[in-house]
Amino acid sequence: MLKSLNALANPRDALGAAEKVAIIDVGSNSFRLIVITYLPGYYFQVTDEVRETVRLVHGIGQTGRLSRTAMDHAVEVMRLYRAFCDAQNITDIVAVATSAVRDAQNQAEFLTRCETEAGIKVRVLSGEEEAYYGFLAAVNSTTLKDGFVIDLGGGSLEITRVENRRSIRGISLVLGAVRMTEDWLTDAPTPNSAIERLREHIHEQLRPLRWFKAQPDTQIVGQGGSLRNAARIIQKAHAYPMDELHGYTFSSADLRRRLVRKMQSLSVAERKQISGMKPDRADIALAGAVVVEECLRFSGYSELLVCSQGVREGLFYERFLRDLPEPRFKDVRAASVMNIAHLYHYHEAHAAHVADLALSMFDQVTQLTSDGLMGKAERHLLWAAAMLHDIGMSIDYNDHHRHSYYLILNSGLPGYSHRELALIALAALYHRKGTPSLQGLDRTLSENDNQRLLKITACLRLAEQLDRSRDGAVRAIRLSKRSERMIQMHVESEVDVAVSKWSAQQHADIFEAAFGYALEINSHA
Amino acid sequence: MLKSLNALANPRDALGAAEKVAIIDVGSNSFRLIVITYLPGYYFQVTDEVRETVRLVHGIGQTGRLSRTAMDHAVEVMRLYRAFCDAQNITDIVAVATSAVRDAQNQAEFLTRCETEAGIKVRVLSGEEEAYYGFLAAVNSTTLKDGFVIDLGGGSLEITRVENRRSIRGISLVLGAVRMTEDWLTDAPTPNSAIERLREHIHEQLRPLRWFKAQPDTQIVGQGGSLRNAARIIQKAHAYPMDELHGYTFSSADLRRRLVRKMQSLSVAERKQISGMKPDRADIALAGAVVVEECLRFSGYSELLVCSQGVREGLFYERFLRDLPEPRFKDVRAASVMNIAHLYHYHEAHAAHVADLALSMFDQVTQLTSDGLMGKAERHLLWAAAMLHDIGMSIDYNDHHRHSYYLILNSGLPGYSHRELALIALAALYHRKGTPSLQGLDRTLSENDNQRLLKITACLRLAEQLDRSRDGAVRAIRLSKRSERMIQMHVESEVDVAVSKWSAQQHADIFEAAFGYALEINSHA
Repeated sequence: MLKSLNALANPRDALGAAEKVAIIDVGSNSFRLIVITYLPGYYFQVTDEVRETVRLVHGIGQTGRLSRTAMDHAVEVMRLYRAFCDAQNITDIVAVATSAVRDAQNQAEFLTRCETEAGIKVRVLSGEEEAYYGFLAAVNSTTLKDGFVIDLGGGSLEITRVENRRSIRGISLVLGAVRMTEDWLTDAPTPNSAIERLREHIHEQLRPLRWFKAQPDTQIVGQGGSLRNAARIIQKAHAYPMDELHGYTFSSADLRRRLVRKMQSLSVAERKQISGMKPDRADIALAGAVVVEECLRFSGYSELLVCSQGVREGLFYERFLRDLPEPRFKDVRAASVMNIAHLYHYHEAHAAHVADLALSMFDQVTQLTSDGLMGKAERHLLWAAAMLHDIGMSIDYNDHHRHSYYLILNSGLPGYSHRELALIALAALYHRKGTPSLQGLDRTLSENDNQRLLKITACLRLAEQLDRSRDGAVRAIRLSKRSERMIQMHVESEVDVAVSKWSAQQHADIFEAAFGYALEINSHA
Repeated sequence: MLKSLNALANPRDALGAAEKVAIIDVGSNSFRLIVITYLPGYYFQVTDEVRETVRLVHGIGQTGRLSRTAMDHAVEVMRLYRAFCDAQNITDIVAVATSAVRDAQNQAEFLTRCETEAGIKVRVLSGEEEAYYGFLAAVNSTTLKDGFVIDLGGGSLEITRVENRRSIRGISLVLGAVRMTEDWLTDAPTPNSAIERLREHIHEQLRPLRWFKAQPDTQIVGQGGSLRNAARIIQKAHAYPMDELHGYTFSSADLRRRLVRKMQSLSVAERKQISGMKPDRADIALAGAVVVEECLRFSGYSELLVCSQGVREGLFYERFLRDLPEPRFKDVRAASVMNIAHLYHYHEAHAAHVADLALSMFDQVTQLTSDGLMGKAERHLLWAAAMLHDIGMSIDYNDHHRHSYYLILNSGLPGYSHRELALIALAALYHRKGTPSLQGLDRTLSENDNQRLLKITACLRLAEQLDRSRDGAVRAIRLSKRSERMIQMHVESEVDVAVSKWSAQQHADIFEAAFGYALEINSHA
């Protein structure tokens, strides 16, 4: 699907056919409207967002009903959302409600008021459906293959078991952060005993789930506002060098130390001062952290991968991938790369040609030098960097390497770890010049990654120079050892490739720095 | 011109009609090819660039001729440039030669070889023409009204006197940085006596120019690679917080201390280590700095405004503004703002409407509160920020305020000082949320600029919220004092503006912080 649509001659043509959908998440804690602009299967981008904390679930633990105040506020927000869509001529509106509305005895009244007063038909998701859409978001934005997805909302917690990228079972428990706060943690500062009682309650709810146990080579992915907020606080505590939440991994120990223990002795006002805390979540953050911590303890995972997408995106993928047999990208990482390539109008022929030449160089030099740092994983990063190296030109030609770096880091490239994201962005940053350095991203990287970066960048830079005129004139390259100190690169072409040879030869220094061989470029056999 | 073309319904339509020109500058020190993509009068952007240090002027002081080696190298580079243009199907090629070719006895041979061997017809600019194109670049990218433009090349120095944005006279002197190095400063480290002899030589050349003298309310603008390199070194020495060179001002004292005195005692290899030094300019940087310093001393200016554009851009403006009576923007600052607005596909109706509302608010609140920090200059910055506040959406909706900041700072906004650039970018950064802070740009700013920023941002943020649905529903606003502590904003509209009122009221806090009055928004008279 993605592949066939790639063939569109000019991405700008595609923009004419773009569709818009407004997805409204009638959540138990907050309402959110997102507008996504997309061309099915080709690219998508969130293009507007409005959020309002409604706390619809408030009081439901006691009465079983949505309160009058909460319902009035909710209907008013829905009316505003409808006016917002009307003003922007958005006719495709998808509104879904989760736990609070699902569980409320006066659900019917609420749905009728939404329809008659705000003109929005709201679909109430069952617990299984809610879990499924969270799963869809996770499987389309991470490399989760086997394991679990947990989605912590204001009212409920969904847990999905995933095998071979399929949802095997999904369940919803009334363990949402607002519910747990109102039911168990009404005081702040919070006594130990209250937290212990909450832990027992959670454990009792989880106990029947014998299938919710860590297995080797599996992972757990977490979603939801409370979880994102927890991740942000942990990032801030570590002075983490990236802003990106999606793809961040935190440990159970961090959750306990940076959130639970820290918040316990503080008032809500004091909790608001914690770096990274969203003020309107300060009162429910402790309960949320305890729920996640207990999930990890019960299932036996020591760390969790943050997925910043959720039900909204899951609903979107169902539309976006409607032409696939199942609404799942075949390859999440390739889809991420192609999505931002399309978004920033990459020069398809040039990028693909640079990728071909760079990978050919990578393969040949690996073989010639028996380089142990250049394996399948590095080869893939080189491919991604080659596809994206020029996207910064959509900002400006001047410093476009720096703009590519900015765009790649900012996109987050769902499906890649932060380490991989950093390496791809850095290779793009250095694709024209300079000695690759880690730009303060060291902490996301592993040992010898500076060497890996140098080798990846060397292949990319030389391939880029070989296609300096962006005309694909260099058909292929053949590398051979001329001596123990020199590698010769033979450039194959049917036309004059003076620009290519001249440009590439000027960058032989990075090849030598990366691989320890001088480089001689020629075009005669 | 700009105005009429603004009426194009969809900027993307315009892209189809874009033209491309390759401008080749056959300079005395380096050759440079730039490709500019443009729609006449509407927008333009450099989309490719190739540079090669040829040093064509080398040895000409002794022989009066281009050397065989230099000419061969030059013709080879021209051949590559031609191949580069052919590969990209660029047929509009403008090539101009300056001092070295102009002065060479074997000029004809060189021109013939360029035409027959490289297929490029080179136009030799006279000294006056060279000065004129430098002037065109300066007058179209700075607010220079009266004063001088100096353009320091490898072979020559051009000086243009400007009155009321017109070139009154232009002259070219053989005082280029390569020439002065080869004629006077062959040794590095460089003895005092050699520098003194060079100073005397420059002074003798300048002495006849009685019109090259500073007058009140005039300024001097400097161009050329040596001058840009000097500016970069001075920025680095000051740890200047912006990368932008264009619009930077440095003093004669800085030039003497950070360049002349510093380099004098160093070898060329050591000079290459100076932070900001372009390695292939390390040998000619000292002579270049001395020439500029002497120009300032002779004319009586204590500081100089850097213009990073030059002859190439001057030639371009002649094409770009071909429909105007003279190839000069009527208003450089407005042209800069509109250029990047078009480049990043701004939402014209929304931006213009936010600007209207923001300026109306600015005018009314200034009158109501007699605010002394809100004058004509601040009003203009508010206009620019309003036009550009959303351009970051071309990168991504998420964090688009941050992307707008990045794009504005990166664009440099020719015609604005760095202080103004910083204030516009910061207002865009804070147009959605947060308490404005100076983001490390303090050193470009003046006293009370944090207060100015807060007031500008408050007007922008509220105007943005009033048009939150981007439908222009709020026709006008009327502010009045309800008490000594509260201002009332009456919102005029023919349709329901619930979204506007709701959105704006949520941001009343910044109004109060900025102006000291609580804000009440209503839509009934």
